[in-house]
Amino acid sequence: MKLTTTLTLATTATATATSYTLDTTLPPPTNLSALPNNTLFHLWRPRAHILPAKGQIGDPCAHYTDPTTGVFHIGYLHDGSGIAGATTSNLVTYTDVSANGSFLIQPGGKNDPVAVFDGSVIPTGVNNTPTLLYTSVSFLPIHWSIPYTRGSETQSLAVAVEGGMRFERLDQGPVIPDHPFAVDVTAFRDPFVFRSARLDVLLLSTTDTTNETAVQAAVDHWTEKGAPWYIVISGGVHGQGPVQFLYRQYHGNSSEFQYWEYLGEWWQEATNSSWGAEGGWAGGWGFNFETGNVAFLTEEGHDPQTGMVVVTLGTEGSDVPIVPQVSSRHDMLWAAGAVETRPEDGRVQFTPSMAGFVDCGFSAYAAAGKVLPATSQVSRGSGVEVDRFLSFVWLTGDQFEQAEGFPTAQQGWTGSLLLPRELTVRTVDHVVDNELVREEGVSWVVEWGESEHTTVTLRTLGIAIARETKAALLANGSVVDEAVRTMREASVVPFRQSPASKFFVLTAQLDFPAEARTSGLQSGFQILASGLEHTTIYYQFSNESLVIDRSQTSAAAPTNPGLDSFTESGRLRLFDVVDEEGGQQKIETLELTVVVDNAVLEVYANGRFALSTWARSWYANSTEIRFFHNGEGEVHFRNVSVSEGLYNAWPERK
Amino acid sequence: MKLTTTLTLATTATATATSYTLDTTLPPPTNLSALPNNTLFHLWRPRAHILPAKGQIGDPCAHYTDPTTGVFHIGYLHDGSGIAGATTSNLVTYTDVSANGSFLIQPGGKNDPVAVFDGSVIPTGVNNTPTLLYTSVSFLPIHWSIPYTRGSETQSLAVAVEGGMRFERLDQGPVIPDHPFAVDVTAFRDPFVFRSARLDVLLLSTTDTTNETAVQAAVDHWTEKGAPWYIVISGGVHGQGPVQFLYRQYHGNSSEFQYWEYLGEWWQEATNSSWGAEGGWAGGWGFNFETGNVAFLTEEGHDPQTGMVVVTLGTEGSDVPIVPQVSSRHDMLWAAGAVETRPEDGRVQFTPSMAGFVDCGFSAYAAAGKVLPATSQVSRGSGVEVDRFLSFVWLTGDQFEQAEGFPTAQQGWTGSLLLPRELTVRTVDHVVDNELVREEGVSWVVEWGESEHTTVTLRTLGIAIARETKAALLANGSVVDEAVRTMREASVVPFRQSPASKFFVLTAQLDFPAEARTSGLQSGFQILASGLEHTTIYYQFSNESLVIDRSQTSAAAPTNPGLDSFTESGRLRLFDVVDEEGGQQKIETLELTVVVDNAVLEVYANGRFALSTWARSWYANSTEIRFFHNGEGEVHFRNVSVSEGLYNAWPERK
Repeated sequence: MKLTTTLTLATTATATATSYTLDTTLPPPTNLSALPNNTLFHLWRPRAHILPAKGQIGDPCAHYTDPTTGVFHIGYLHDGSGIAGATTSNLVTYTDVSANGSFLIQPGGKNDPVAVFDGSVIPTGVNNTPTLLYTSVSFLPIHWSIPYTRGSETQSLAVAVEGGMRFERLDQGPVIPDHPFAVDVTAFRDPFVFRSARLDVLLLSTTDTTNETAVQAAVDHWTEKGAPWYIVISGGVHGQGPVQFLYRQYHGNSSEFQYWEYLGEWWQEATNSSWGAEGGWAGGWGFNFETGNVAFLTEEGHDPQTGMVVVTLGTEGSDVPIVPQVSSRHDMLWAAGAVETRPEDGRVQFTPSMAGFVDCGFSAYAAAGKVLPATSQVSRGSGVEVDRFLSFVWLTGDQFEQAEGFPTAQQGWTGSLLLPRELTVRTVDHVVDNELVREEGVSWVVEWGESEHTTVTLRTLGIAIARETKAALLANGSVVDEAVRTMREASVVPFRQSPASKFFVLTAQLDFPAEARTSGLQSGFQILASGLEHTTIYYQFSNESLVIDRSQTSAAAPTNPGLDSFTESGRLRLFDVVDEEGGQQKIETLELTVVVDNAVLEVYANGRFALSTWARSWYANSTEIRFFHNGEGEVHFRNVSVSEGLYNAWPERK
Repeated sequence: MKLTTTLTLATTATATATSYTLDTTLPPPTNLSALPNNTLFHLWRPRAHILPAKGQIGDPCAHYTDPTTGVFHIGYLHDGSGIAGATTSNLVTYTDVSANGSFLIQPGGKNDPVAVFDGSVIPTGVNNTPTLLYTSVSFLPIHWSIPYTRGSETQSLAVAVEGGMRFERLDQGPVIPDHPFAVDVTAFRDPFVFRSARLDVLLLSTTDTTNETAVQAAVDHWTEKGAPWYIVISGGVHGQGPVQFLYRQYHGNSSEFQYWEYLGEWWQEATNSSWGAEGGWAGGWGFNFETGNVAFLTEEGHDPQTGMVVVTLGTEGSDVPIVPQVSSRHDMLWAAGAVETRPEDGRVQFTPSMAGFVDCGFSAYAAAGKVLPATSQVSRGSGVEVDRFLSFVWLTGDQFEQAEGFPTAQQGWTGSLLLPRELTVRTVDHVVDNELVREEGVSWVVEWGESEHTTVTLRTLGIAIARETKAALLANGSVVDEAVRTMREASVVPFRQSPASKFFVLTAQLDFPAEARTSGLQSGFQILASGLEHTTIYYQFSNESLVIDRSQTSAAAPTNPGLDSFTESGRLRLFDVVDEEGGQQKIETLELTVVVDNAVLEVYANGRFALSTWARSWYANSTEIRFFHNGEGEVHFRNVSVSEGLYNAWPERK
């Protein structure tokens, strides 16, 4: 044991009051898991991110804007013991809903004796009060690789009380007490509630449209009752594949949220299939869907009438051979496409026309989104006048509990949410209509312009840090701009001025000449760097990937395999575009936003790409930033800026 | 307190070993509920009946013949804590399934945290093992007079283990996890499983019968899969009325008993309506159905192919005004009729053509029947070569817990089952075709004979003590025949020889002249009689009723209102028949079988009538039997016989 190399042991008079201090100017201990509990608490902890005061964070869920106060509530699974939460009025600072680490809801009720899984909230639910529809769990284990125990997952209601301090269960059985009849599901969980004028109209049209009386009766029905809520429930079917099950609020009686009519499998994919080429642009559909969300996105925000139908979802996949009860792959995906009724039975079907990653990081998963209305305190404070769709992505801290040897107790907390993101429709204009555009199974669709076009507009999912959050990240602390720099040969060049801490935002634009596309060029930055550690973020054209090389990230990793050090990457195509002013053809500029919040690393690119991971540097002085260039070819760096400091998202925590 | 008038108090040296002895030669104590616990244990306890060693018995249920051993298992709710049971190989003597008062199944599982209600058994169920389908209860209270809590009653499976010593729950959720979708039920319980070639054929015919391929496919389906099981679940719908919900085993996958397809409300009646005139022949349908059974009866026994469709059921009714959560009326009814598919939607419908009481007694309720196969040990032992339908009726001991002041703890047990009964089709031949026959809304149907008929055959439900049981009752102990007697004037005449005990069977035939029909005649017997007590059983033509007058039954009743002493009665029509030999028209002979098993009194008449109640005589010498005659008119008593002794149904109990 070499604890003394890094620890200052200070034993007080009482045996229970032993304290230890890490010294990160010295090499790390061989086995971090041998340290006293909480020794590593501050070492890698982010400050601007959403995570509980201590302990584990799991799937985000149960978000809503309180219709009475306008305050936004976020929730997340916590310590495997239920759902905890916080509130925010600005998407910057957060207040724990309970100061004492209590929960919004915990298992142990009649419907959920074993566990409470993800839920989502109808803001004006039972008695016009925020109402949680969640997966109440009675039997475990549940996994797509083993037979499903009937009734393991049901969907139940709980109503917010004490201003959202708790969700109190309805004293009754589940409102969806069983998966669809006789379907051999792999899972049946994570209900996501939403409204959809699109679906309302589609489903009305299934009545005999030649029968005006029937159509009018259907229209009158929704007019009188109010638009119904829908639910997608995620899961799959053994031997068939992953599925989203669709339900609609049933207005048959006065108990408004009691009954939900099953409308069928509105989306299903074949087992272990993928969008386009295997793993190319959108990972794999895996064996089972989880945490499916449905949004109706525009370029500005969210509009259930006109918006593009976008689904975000987690997929549970596996390497070969399959290890029972283990999903070795978790892809955090999105898909967008058409919603139509099937002629043969009038059932609503979702058919993707494009798909991609919400976040390409291995540890990013289980995104839970929610419409943030323009009337919310957040939007009123920032002057945003449209409804938006926010998505909160989970960053597992221990590789989905598969990180053997991770110093869980020593760190005292595990995992985080990533920064709040706005999902929108993102267009790429003036794109040259070449083979880069016309590929099948990709993450964009082509909008053909006028006849005789030479350029097209691409439409894809926009992924960006929520504007209030990003503004606050950039506004806090000191800002240092790096001079414009052109690099032509393999080299690593330190910034003129690197940050002194591990809390900063790096933004930059990288321009490449046309010949870069066929080169072996790797270009980007090293961050969290010192003589002993560095993390390299670079783009390479050879496989159109944005890469995070973590092989040298942490001096602690070699002897602590729980600290994952594998390389992360995600596919990003830089298209050929025509310069708006000069009319010149060039490769699209790579626009990077890199958030370093201690060990949480988020890389955003071009408003349509995100790759997040852990970068657990050890040494206190690993704060340097360097230009990184490898291979041959010219790269022009501009608008390189570092905002150091970030903010403390939890000012009220002691 | 006058306890000393009837109690001999013997206090031993240790305070805990106090014993008391009743003296039933002295007047009863004013307040029986003030006596020490178990003081009254033996006073009114039957010996030939089915009841637990101690404590309360509730609804009978969960009967089956073990396909491996041929032994018949009976079950019953016990102490409000689950289902207990016993076995028999002869319908005479019984063996507690567990000697230590344990249960076949008790609440406390995930599906039944609050209670276990009635279930029925598929003899060759899961893994070809007897499998209980029962109502698993999660929320209370449940009553037709209050709003129904969603999910209160679900239907779950448990499998017999250790030769039927226990039913072990499947470790999963309910197989029927909710009542029919969006139906505002009053109850959803007491599943009764059965097979029915009749329903199989009917439901096949709902396929397009002009499409030979489709029909053949349906036939092949059942041939391959084996005939399905059906379930009726009892309950009702608020604002509509009582209902039996019909389900069919779903053969969609390999989990044979997992899924049950809802086939609709195969029988519904309007709230608080009745068959024929109000309360006339078949009580009232009430507000809610309970314990519905379905049988296919012949004159000999049970045949699911050719048998008459008979339903037995309990109905929950109420006097006016309705007291919330109290059913003041419980009718134990049967109905028989047609089963057809409704043309508009092909749904199976049961439509009664006659209905009546399985037992007219106020306390008789919750009959649970089961097919007793010819292969059972019971039938093999007695040489019965047909399948039969046995019905076990509950006799509540405390007026459905409404008997205020009943000395429950003092007696140490509450309630009993009535003697096992065989239900059959009963015909009454050579009935004169007059207005007595041609009434609407009655308990029989008329079989019109050849043309030019003057007599008809009536068809009704046969109700009789199971033949093995009855044979044993008559065979045990001493038999004394009374001489033939004709009575013409009001008088009470003691038997030449009355029994010395309160355990006997009295059989008799009473003939009435034609003019009796319009007379005020009351004719029958007094039993359990002494100078201070008697119970009068008589038939009277004025309202065609068999009556049990209990106003003088018990010297203890006047000061102990928990001992019900109201008059019991049931409607029985004696038809005009033509003597087979002489061709003379006469009133049908009244054929009585009266079983007195201490305080349990069962009166059977003419193979189609039963009236059971409690007759809690106090005095030890209240054992006299007397001919009873009141009003004017001649009555001829013949074949009057008393078999005294009965048998001990529980020889293995200490």
